[in-house]
Amino acid sequence: MDMLWNGWGDPAKAAPLPGTVTGLLRDLLGVTPRTAPALALEDIRLPGPTAGAAALEALARAAGGDEHVLTDAESRIRHTRGKSTPDLLRLRAGDVCDVPRAVVLPASHDEVLAVLRACAEHGLAVVPFGGGTSVVGGLAPEGRAFVALDLRRMNGLLDLDPVSRTAVLQPGLRAPEAEALLAEQGFTLGHFPQSYEWATIGGFAAARSSGQASAGYGRFDDMVLGLTLATPEGTIETGRAPRSAAGPDLRQLILGSEGAFGVITSVLVRIRPLPQVRDYEGWRFASFEEGAAALRRLAQDGPRPTVLRLSDETETLIGLAQPDAIGSRLERGDAGCMAITGYEGTAEDTGRRRERAAAVLRACGGTPVGTEPGERWAHGRYSAPYLRDALLDAGAFAETLETAAFWSRVPDLYNAVRAALTDTLTRAGTPPLVMCHISHVYENGASLYFTVVSAQGEDPVAHWAPAKHAANDAVLAAGGTISHHHGVGTDHRDWYVREAGALGVAALRAVKHRLDPDGLLNPGVLLPTD
Amino acid sequence: MDMLWNGWGDPAKAAPLPGTVTGLLRDLLGVTPRTAPALALEDIRLPGPTAGAAALEALARAAGGDEHVLTDAESRIRHTRGKSTPDLLRLRAGDVCDVPRAVVLPASHDEVLAVLRACAEHGLAVVPFGGGTSVVGGLAPEGRAFVALDLRRMNGLLDLDPVSRTAVLQPGLRAPEAEALLAEQGFTLGHFPQSYEWATIGGFAAARSSGQASAGYGRFDDMVLGLTLATPEGTIETGRAPRSAAGPDLRQLILGSEGAFGVITSVLVRIRPLPQVRDYEGWRFASFEEGAAALRRLAQDGPRPTVLRLSDETETLIGLAQPDAIGSRLERGDAGCMAITGYEGTAEDTGRRRERAAAVLRACGGTPVGTEPGERWAHGRYSAPYLRDALLDAGAFAETLETAAFWSRVPDLYNAVRAALTDTLTRAGTPPLVMCHISHVYENGASLYFTVVSAQGEDPVAHWAPAKHAANDAVLAAGGTISHHHGVGTDHRDWYVREAGALGVAALRAVKHRLDPDGLLNPGVLLPTD
Repeated sequence: MDMLWNGWGDPAKAAPLPGTVTGLLRDLLGVTPRTAPALALEDIRLPGPTAGAAALEALARAAGGDEHVLTDAESRIRHTRGKSTPDLLRLRAGDVCDVPRAVVLPASHDEVLAVLRACAEHGLAVVPFGGGTSVVGGLAPEGRAFVALDLRRMNGLLDLDPVSRTAVLQPGLRAPEAEALLAEQGFTLGHFPQSYEWATIGGFAAARSSGQASAGYGRFDDMVLGLTLATPEGTIETGRAPRSAAGPDLRQLILGSEGAFGVITSVLVRIRPLPQVRDYEGWRFASFEEGAAALRRLAQDGPRPTVLRLSDETETLIGLAQPDAIGSRLERGDAGCMAITGYEGTAEDTGRRRERAAAVLRACGGTPVGTEPGERWAHGRYSAPYLRDALLDAGAFAETLETAAFWSRVPDLYNAVRAALTDTLTRAGTPPLVMCHISHVYENGASLYFTVVSAQGEDPVAHWAPAKHAANDAVLAAGGTISHHHGVGTDHRDWYVREAGALGVAALRAVKHRLDPDGLLNPGVLLPTD
Repeated sequence: MDMLWNGWGDPAKAAPLPGTVTGLLRDLLGVTPRTAPALALEDIRLPGPTAGAAALEALARAAGGDEHVLTDAESRIRHTRGKSTPDLLRLRAGDVCDVPRAVVLPASHDEVLAVLRACAEHGLAVVPFGGGTSVVGGLAPEGRAFVALDLRRMNGLLDLDPVSRTAVLQPGLRAPEAEALLAEQGFTLGHFPQSYEWATIGGFAAARSSGQASAGYGRFDDMVLGLTLATPEGTIETGRAPRSAAGPDLRQLILGSEGAFGVITSVLVRIRPLPQVRDYEGWRFASFEEGAAALRRLAQDGPRPTVLRLSDETETLIGLAQPDAIGSRLERGDAGCMAITGYEGTAEDTGRRRERAAAVLRACGGTPVGTEPGERWAHGRYSAPYLRDALLDAGAFAETLETAAFWSRVPDLYNAVRAALTDTLTRAGTPPLVMCHISHVYENGASLYFTVVSAQGEDPVAHWAPAKHAANDAVLAAGGTISHHHGVGTDHRDWYVREAGALGVAALRAVKHRLDPDGLLNPGVLLPTD
């Protein structure tokens, strides 16, 4: 099944907003319905030609046949950019200037190497393409003719070692496919990001994804024990042991490299036994501060739930209230904050952790509100991007951004980003609703995930840019990282350069030049082009 | 207090072997007393001059005064090489060909930068020097005139954040000093490698150290949240959040760089509350295989002890038996295998973990043998290097080496390394005693730590080389990593190049060239020189 070309996910799951919500958007945020008609895929006019005949021939040879090189308009449009709100808005407006010249589908590591050679010979850049779910401009090489290297044919489980609890996965496996293959043998990866339904193993590794059960299963980069990387200069293979003192960790140089150093062609991952039990429940705290202190206590002293999240007052209210009561309750601010705790594992282990964690949460001021909020969260955990489509259809603007910091900086970071978003959009005439949650906790800090909803403004992409810019500045000024799990792409690159520092970036560029001397790979993504 | 110049640790703790042991060494391994008289420090003749007057002046300016540049023979000899057995044997034989031209003691990050500039101007290589405890040739630049950059003046606790549970430590802090400073505020790092008494924070980071309580506190590289690196090309600062998706993890590029990319000038570490309770106990298993399966079960399914170790049959017997019974018991092979489990934390938490772990260990065939073996282990945990000195004094050869692999490969790796050591030394006429323990466990694998004792042979350094070479080959052939926690240095470099692969090494060399274009920093350590 293909994803909605100008939105998210399965087209069959799309649903318009209820009338009460559109009314609320109008009354609360001044959202007015879009008047421009929606463009159909077949109405899109491609701005550029396909790759030349010689290049296409070379690509077909590299990928084992003409049928593995796609040049039709639909395939090219479906490989244009990712799934950020600006990406979708530009597609909806018919702007496909970042379209690839062709889509190539290699089936093996050696075919990937051959595709890279063919692209080098024909002067084409290469954008590795997994699920196409980047929300940070990770698939848009600036101003270069390029080929999308789609990894969908590399979608196997190559090996499973039940003693070591490891598996070798190919990069084009979508997460549900990977889970199904592992489940046949009684195992799970435990990686459930919001992009779960569509994103791929290679993309998780390339962009340092983090899933909703990271408190229990860890981030994706925690799960990776080895990687194979195909580069224009050859192959790097890593991972002979869980940990090593043999030099800098090359795995950690490839993780987060976002296709700029090479194409990840296999991933050795840690796997765990399928849980017998999955229990989710809700806890209410009087304030975000109180709830955050409770999460910190569990993260630092345990026991660690498998899922641990906390919505701020605004997000809690939006999640809880009937639409027609939101306005008045927002003013009263009496919703409190909802936390979700989840436990996965054996019945004995989850029961034990749940009981001890409950005692800690109570001691920190929490009130249990039963399993219903937890089950509702688990049921809807992948639905927010569908909701975004409906909001965009209704004329609203909706986007997310995220960061992380050490615990002592989290309160200032929270306030600074909220203020930056609110002030910028309010000054621009579209006061927003800004919601936030903590979705990932560590002993030493936590992530903050913001959702912004407002009216779109005249030119929605241009309208959003100053707010995003201000939020990024606020993140750095308040001591946060420019991304906790979305990545750098092109959207965060300028701030990433500030975060990593001139010499840090220079060291990474030295790696890039060595592995990709012609600068073919995802130019402008992660690192600035020369 | 200075360390023994030609051995390990506090000279006051040196003690000769009991006569029963020397008798055993003679009967079992054919060890004969050394006849060459021990050289005194003042008898050592330095082979090369100090740095020139202009260079010394520049170094003094960089480090804030003449008193911070040492050129006396004792200081230079004390900064010659590390503490591997070949290092000690060469020192004992009066070979100090790797002596530095001077020892410089900068007191700040900026002074380190200035020292690097001064060295660049005067064509001197630089070897960062913490505790001087490398056992892999990490302090011996091949054939270059160099300065030892001793970090002992940078020994402060700069910041402690009790909310985030982080601290900023300077690199020259020895582990006991760091623990004392943290303990004043109720915290611990929890890093207790065998080199604990002498090694420094900077060295732990540069060489990816792993301590004896790694099952509970993690490896040192797990504890590092941020680093500052001074390089000839400027400064890299990392660590704004526990984890990030902003590109490759620069921390993991600096960790394990062994002074070849720059000088680590501060380390942001995770800290934990001081434990209320420390309980260690012993468990007996019928075989190494049975014990390893029990450790694996705890590592994979929990509960995780803070300390978790398992000696093989030979090491168990040597540790348990009265010396005069070792020969006959080695033949009978009936000692079984001793595991040590340790629990640190609150009384409640350690009690809970201990009880549950005991049930798992019993189910895996373990028999509890009480707290005495655990306490004996804890008491003697830093004493093995002192014992090595006594063995060397008695004319025996004693050395250690270590590796790690995924669980399913551990049995073959164990057999292959033992066979390589035993066969090579037996063929050379000095059949060895080879002992092994698992000292670090992970969900997906474990480390193996080997101790070899034999007669020295005619030229002990040359005699050992083929055995070490064979062991390294066996490690790689059996799928292990060339080092789990000792590092690469010069001793492991050729095997590290095979492990990382040509392109992996090329990527790291590109980083090295960018940060250290003149190749001043620890030349030949970690990476081959050009």
